[in-house]
Amino acid sequence: MALQDILKSVSSGALWRRNWQDMCRDLLRLKDEATVLKLAAHVLRLYRHFDEDERLEFFRFLLENFRVDADALKAAIAQYQLDPSPANVQHLNRASQPPRRQVFELFNMVPGGTPLLVDMRSDLLRLRREHPDISAVDEDLTALFRAWFNRGFLTLEQINWDTPAAVLEKLIEYEAVHEIQGWDDLQRRVSSGRRCYAFFHPALPGEPIIFVQAALTSGLAGSIDQLIRDESTRADAGESEASADTAIFYSISNCQHGLTGIAFGDLLIKQVVDLISSELPHIKAFATLSPIPGFGGWLTKAQAAGELSAAEATVVETVRNNPDQFPWQTDDGSTETVMSALCAHYLLHEKRGDAPLDPVARFHLRNGARLERLNWAADSSAKGKQQSAGMLVNYVYDQKSVTRNHESYVYEGNVISSNAFAQLARKRQ
Amino acid sequence: MALQDILKSVSSGALWRRNWQDMCRDLLRLKDEATVLKLAAHVLRLYRHFDEDERLEFFRFLLENFRVDADALKAAIAQYQLDPSPANVQHLNRASQPPRRQVFELFNMVPGGTPLLVDMRSDLLRLRREHPDISAVDEDLTALFRAWFNRGFLTLEQINWDTPAAVLEKLIEYEAVHEIQGWDDLQRRVSSGRRCYAFFHPALPGEPIIFVQAALTSGLAGSIDQLIRDESTRADAGESEASADTAIFYSISNCQHGLTGIAFGDLLIKQVVDLISSELPHIKAFATLSPIPGFGGWLTKAQAAGELSAAEATVVETVRNNPDQFPWQTDDGSTETVMSALCAHYLLHEKRGDAPLDPVARFHLRNGARLERLNWAADSSAKGKQQSAGMLVNYVYDQKSVTRNHESYVYEGNVISSNAFAQLARKRQ
Amino acid sequence: MALQDILKSVSSGALWRRNWQDMCRDLLRLKDEATVLKLAAHVLRLYRHFDEDERLEFFRFLLENFRVDADALKAAIAQYQLDPSPANVQHLNRASQPPRRQVFELFNMVPGGTPLLVDMRSDLLRLRREHPDISAVDEDLTALFRAWFNRGFLTLEQINWDTPAAVLEKLIEYEAVHEIQGWDDLQRRVSSGRRCYAFFHPALPGEPIIFVQAALTSGLAGSIDQLIRDESTRADAGESEASADTAIFYSISNCQHGLTGIAFGDLLIKQVVDLISSELPHIKAFATLSPIPGFGGWLTKAQAAGELSAAEATVVETVRNNPDQFPWQTDDGSTETVMSALCAHYLLHEKRGDAPLDPVARFHLRNGARLERLNWAADSSAKGKQQSAGMLVNYVYDQKSVTRNHESYVYEGNVISSNAFAQLARKRQ
Amino acid sequence: MALQDILKSVSSGALWRRNWQDMCRDLLRLKDEATVLKLAAHVLRLYRHFDEDERLEFFRFLLENFRVDADALKAAIAQYQLDPSPANVQHLNRASQPPRRQVFELFNMVPGGTPLLVDMRSDLLRLRREHPDISAVDEDLTALFRAWFNRGFLTLEQINWDTPAAVLEKLIEYEAVHEIQGWDDLQRRVSSGRRCYAFFHPALPGEPIIFVQAALTSGLAGSIDQLIRDESTRADAGESEASADTAIFYSISNCQHGLTGIAFGDLLIKQVVDLISSELPHIKAFATLSPIPGFGGWLTKAQAAGELSAAEATVVETVRNNPDQFPWQTDDGSTETVMSALCAHYLLHEKRGDAPLDPVARFHLRNGARLERLNWAADSSAKGKQQSAGMLVNYVYDQKSVTRNHESYVYEGNVISSNAFAQLARKRQ
Repeated sequence: MALQDILKSVSSGALWRRNWQDMCRDLLRLKDEATVLKLAAHVLRLYRHFDEDERLEFFRFLLENFRVDADALKAAIAQYQLDPSPANVQHLNRASQPPRRQVFELFNMVPGGTPLLVDMRSDLLRLRREHPDISAVDEDLTALFRAWFNRGFLTLEQINWDTPAAVLEKLIEYEAVHEIQGWDDLQRRVSSGRRCYAFFHPALPGEPIIFVQAALTSGLAGSIDQLIRDESTRADAGESEASADTAIFYSISNCQHGLTGIAFGDLLIKQVVDLISSELPHIKAFATLSPIPGFGGWLTKAQAAGELSAAEATVVETVRNNPDQFPWQTDDGSTETVMSALCAHYLLHEKRGDAPLDPVARFHLRNGARLERLNWAADSSAKGKQQSAGMLVNYVYDQKSVTRNHESYVYEGNVISSNAFAQLARKRQ
Repeated sequence: MALQDILKSVSSGALWRRNWQDMCRDLLRLKDEATVLKLAAHVLRLYRHFDEDERLEFFRFLLENFRVDADALKAAIAQYQLDPSPANVQHLNRASQPPRRQVFELFNMVPGGTPLLVDMRSDLLRLRREHPDISAVDEDLTALFRAWFNRGFLTLEQINWDTPAAVLEKLIEYEAVHEIQGWDDLQRRVSSGRRCYAFFHPALPGEPIIFVQAALTSGLAGSIDQLIRDESTRADAGESEASADTAIFYSISNCQHGLTGIAFGDLLIKQVVDLISSELPHIKAFATLSPIPGFGGWLTKAQAAGELSAAEATVVETVRNNPDQFPWQTDDGSTETVMSALCAHYLLHEKRGDAPLDPVARFHLRNGARLERLNWAADSSAKGKQQSAGMLVNYVYDQKSVTRNHESYVYEGNVISSNAFAQLARKRQ
Repeated sequence: MALQDILKSVSSGALWRRNWQDMCRDLLRLKDEATVLKLAAHVLRLYRHFDEDERLEFFRFLLENFRVDADALKAAIAQYQLDPSPANVQHLNRASQPPRRQVFELFNMVPGGTPLLVDMRSDLLRLRREHPDISAVDEDLTALFRAWFNRGFLTLEQINWDTPAAVLEKLIEYEAVHEIQGWDDLQRRVSSGRRCYAFFHPALPGEPIIFVQAALTSGLAGSIDQLIRDESTRADAGESEASADTAIFYSISNCQHGLTGIAFGDLLIKQVVDLISSELPHIKAFATLSPIPGFGGWLTKAQAAGELSAAEATVVETVRNNPDQFPWQTDDGSTETVMSALCAHYLLHEKRGDAPLDPVARFHLRNGARLERLNWAADSSAKGKQQSAGMLVNYVYDQKSVTRNHESYVYEGNVISSNAFAQLARKRQ
Repeated sequence: MALQDILKSVSSGALWRRNWQDMCRDLLRLKDEATVLKLAAHVLRLYRHFDEDERLEFFRFLLENFRVDADALKAAIAQYQLDPSPANVQHLNRASQPPRRQVFELFNMVPGGTPLLVDMRSDLLRLRREHPDISAVDEDLTALFRAWFNRGFLTLEQINWDTPAAVLEKLIEYEAVHEIQGWDDLQRRVSSGRRCYAFFHPALPGEPIIFVQAALTSGLAGSIDQLIRDESTRADAGESEASADTAIFYSISNCQHGLTGIAFGDLLIKQVVDLISSELPHIKAFATLSPIPGFGGWLTKAQAAGELSAAEATVVETVRNNPDQFPWQTDDGSTETVMSALCAHYLLHEKRGDAPLDPVARFHLRNGARLERLNWAADSSAKGKQQSAGMLVNYVYDQKSVTRNHESYVYEGNVISSNAFAQLARKRQ
């Protein structure tokens, strides 16, 4: 559109009676911020109603129409090569930044823009699996998200029964570890004897970004059934809270698929540890009660590859084929012995590169936690039996050693465990 | 420090007993986020007590120790030159981004980090005037600030007498146009018949970023003395508010020197116009009562350059040398006629490049406002007499034409004015 | 206890190691307010664990131990009879006020005292049915409640999905008209197209006192099934809200049994009408969709007393004995005709004293509403079929006539109805 | 007005076009609550503009037009005399309560009614001094205020620099002990090293009812000049706060003249002691720094009555006649010795009935505080020199003995003091 035409179309309102491609092009051409924001809002409204193909087309449009200026970039490179001064580095950096990023910045200025961009990135992540060419668009959004969701901007808030229902229902929706069975279950999880904390961002009001659930117990809890499925535990929750000495983190869930890759989990646990320590000084120990999600898959592969002994293979078969016989009790306790040894081995010695094969183990060990105890017959859910053979593991966050553990893990690849845990793996038969 | 030493020093607490340079170096070397944040907080505490020389040294340290990896950048350039794909552009963009930016991102994660970084940039802006080599450091911070202070994250809030005193005192401190004379004056400016609005950012709680003051009047107000200095106007403020039809913006002040160059002012005025329009539907007209801060300086230069007529020069001399005789009344009104014509000429025709020479005119005309009326004997303050010869000008924000005016100004360099205003300049003698 | 003993027991802490009767006696004897409040708190803690017999004993203890001073009252009577001056009336009024009231005032000063007193009155109301001697204790509490719950202290708040779950669950608990079927039903009732408002008192945080539910509709709604039980109505709730012109109040429920007799309902409806009128100016009409709870009972009595015609009696029998055949359709519509006529007759002409026999009719007609329309086959719930023969009635709150209607009803006993409604009753067969 | 006329006037709006007397009469005659509240609001609006004579007339109107029903009261007395049952006592109590109270209850339901009634009582208290006949009206309002302002409804809130200016300015207005010299002084009094707390009532938002000011010090502070007038104390306030071990209450002020006689002060101090104890566990001691407001007046009377020795009389003369020579230093310290002995005597031994003559002493000793230390040359203000000869006294609130002290004071009239204080009085010459 020629400038005269722009002026005319602004006056006449014709700006809004065009296709979204033309409107997008004007986003960086028009100068009046108020007009530009109205255009951006209009485009976002249209985007909401796009189907999958239109969204792909939208991302490809952004990719192709908001490229860097090749000549300017060429010149910046030449200038840098002539004189690699800090100023010329900056110049090169600016010249290599696609103007797409400005488009996303404009979208973010629209009221309600941030949540919509988080959803948009969720679309991007899904679409780029089959259309890797749009990855470059995701890089722009990711770079902005890293800045916008800097942890300094997040606030840690307790979730309890006084929290708005609109927030609480999101916990039911997002809980990824131990499904929440409706509002009664939810109430138990945020009431006396329990704690739930979430990170929030000021531009995503009412939208938890990640949340963690803890139970206050006397000593290390070994069974999730006991923690969250037992109705009887509720009545005396207040009393048991007062006498508790341990906080057990039994679930940590990300809520925003669109923020994948922008991790907050490690800091969340440590902030919650600090917060509980200061609010409830009688809580002295902090640990998790965690699934071993990769164990089932590894067992299958190990068996296929002939890495299990005959005795082990028999037990594994029994467990796998008879989920209804949970907890697979035998008089001599052999099932428990064999499966525990295999699981301890898996957690301590099976690797992906230098890091543990199990994703949950990677997360907590990297945080500086210690493999403390393996719990047999701890999770009777279908998922628990299938993935973790009904076992759960405690990772201990010991404030005195967590930093040392972390650095030792990161620099030297050490998996820290209690002596008892290390013993378990030696009992393989 | 070797890795073994790091592990030892983490365990022993020796990390904190070193100089700040060593601690800064470890910020990007250590992996445990909790430890890194403690280090960052420690460095920021030290920074607070740095003197001017140490701050300069600190910025130079950042400049020199967190450079881009030259080899990696070279490789990225080569790759891009081979194949200028979007992915390779992104790669180049990342390789050319100095790791300093990560350091600032870490600082921002420290509690209270954002306000301290805003202060730090204020230091940077001051120091780089004499030490332009540190400008590259400012570029990193500026890039982050542009992302963090995206207008989508700002909230517009009304300031009134129910606002915490801790916020109100900042208005006294930051008011840049018409000084606030203590708490009684402040109360008048936020009470009935007046409005005050500010932008806030969630990471700068209690710190206005920019604020605008308006008075509700019947018709276009021409005198600031009448608006804010006249005690008698207060008694019937409630009544006059009800009968007002015009909102006069008489002051707009930036509060954060550290956010210089990250402009919010134009959007603030437009949002306030929208807000007042919907809350007080009887307010139909919006205008400013603005100083002409560059007029006095231009007069001096024009006179020296012989650009004034003899008659003009005489009047200018009289006004300049006799501030106490304000408002310089003569029987024939000739002083007013001559000075008004000169001032209208200055606002309409004197340029810096394509834009008006006067900074306030540039701001409002760029926003799409219209030069409406020049007010003689409108500001009796010392500053007003010296800079603006005691005159104030009304810029009108007419919602119907503001976008057209803006685009016409930006694309064609047109200065929009009322007919009466345009006439004034033709009366030069 | 002698004074010396009191002093000793205060010092030694023995005050708290006695029975509640002794502690109650000291409430008005001790002078140190802090000590008295601790005693009062202690007594209230004990009360919480009292069983039914102990509570009765407690109320009788209050009745007998905190009587008026008979001599002082006698003297005050004598003085009044000598000189019936305003001062002597006041004196008599004070002398005839039992010191029990002071005990309740002390209880109210204890943190959490007000909600406990509300529960205590609920106990009182229950117990006095069989033990009318304690009614005098209830009078004291009632007098205080009338002062404390003066409507000037209540705040009207909207309940929606952003309301804390702890408040929302009380709606499920207290809804008395159309039972809320769990959280999904609850969410529908507070979301788009609906409104829910409640009165709160500052000393009962999170405890609604009374709440009213409304649906926004196009025209007068006739069926509760359509309003709250139809899933399909939800999808387009936002849209229908925008095009609605009528607010239908379909439920009003008291939440605090302990506040029985301290009525708030009439003002609640009128305040909500004002509030909706100003927030949603396109809502022009306000009406209820109300049950006729006394209709079923009256039918039974009328039939027994031979007040129904043979034709009527047959239809009534059919309806009563075949709830599963709701809505009792016949080809000639005769069931509807007969039952409607009976119901209109019941609402218009059956009285208790001068007022309508039906309690809901009494409430709305006294408020100034008008009987507008009877809706056949409007409520398929078991309760609806049994009490109201599945009918619901619309009372219209017409802001122009509500005061006139009210005064006409109160002073002249007129039942205001639409012409169509009045016609219905004339069709009795 | 006949009923027909009322109905007509309601319909026609004529209700509001009458004099306030007629409207008042209708308040208890009309039945429609919405109409009644509009009438009540109208009367209150008129009241605001009444002059002193009209207000007196208004109170007399209430007195005469809302009397008890003499016949009903007579019957209630007869019934009680026949059978003095609890029910008949209640009946008598109701019959002796003037309907004025209902009028005030209606006024309280009007939005903004409570603050206006507080102001109205302030008028009543002022007018009844010369017109004691209206005292009976005050009794009604007082009885309601005692119920409405039950301490259970008050909330204790800290006042600091984040408090709205509209609340802070009331501290300047109401501070009764040591005048606040503008906003800078105010800021010092609510900032680091100081604390300020106030009671608020939910129906008086933004209106403190009573507030207390404390300074955090190391050891017992003896000089108010040092506490609040010394600019130098501010810089290191944060530091000194951390090392403080004592909280000194140096001012307690009632804010609402209309709540005179409805005391909150004693509980306020004790609640603040509890609050500071739990928030700042390093604060171990709590004391006041209090004026001796009755000392000057007693000296004058004692001198006139010849109760002073010649030596004492000489010193008293010097002090009284030479306020500018504060602190009246002599080489032998004799002025201090003589005046201190007189003041200690005054506080310990001069009585009004059984209680100390000094009103501040009465307040703190009744609360259970102990006379601890007399401070010479502690208050250089004009008021301080005139009333207290520049002295201030510390009352200590020792949590262990405060209840025992209180009961000992109340039951046995004992004035508790430190040994050193008791010694002082023995040094009279």
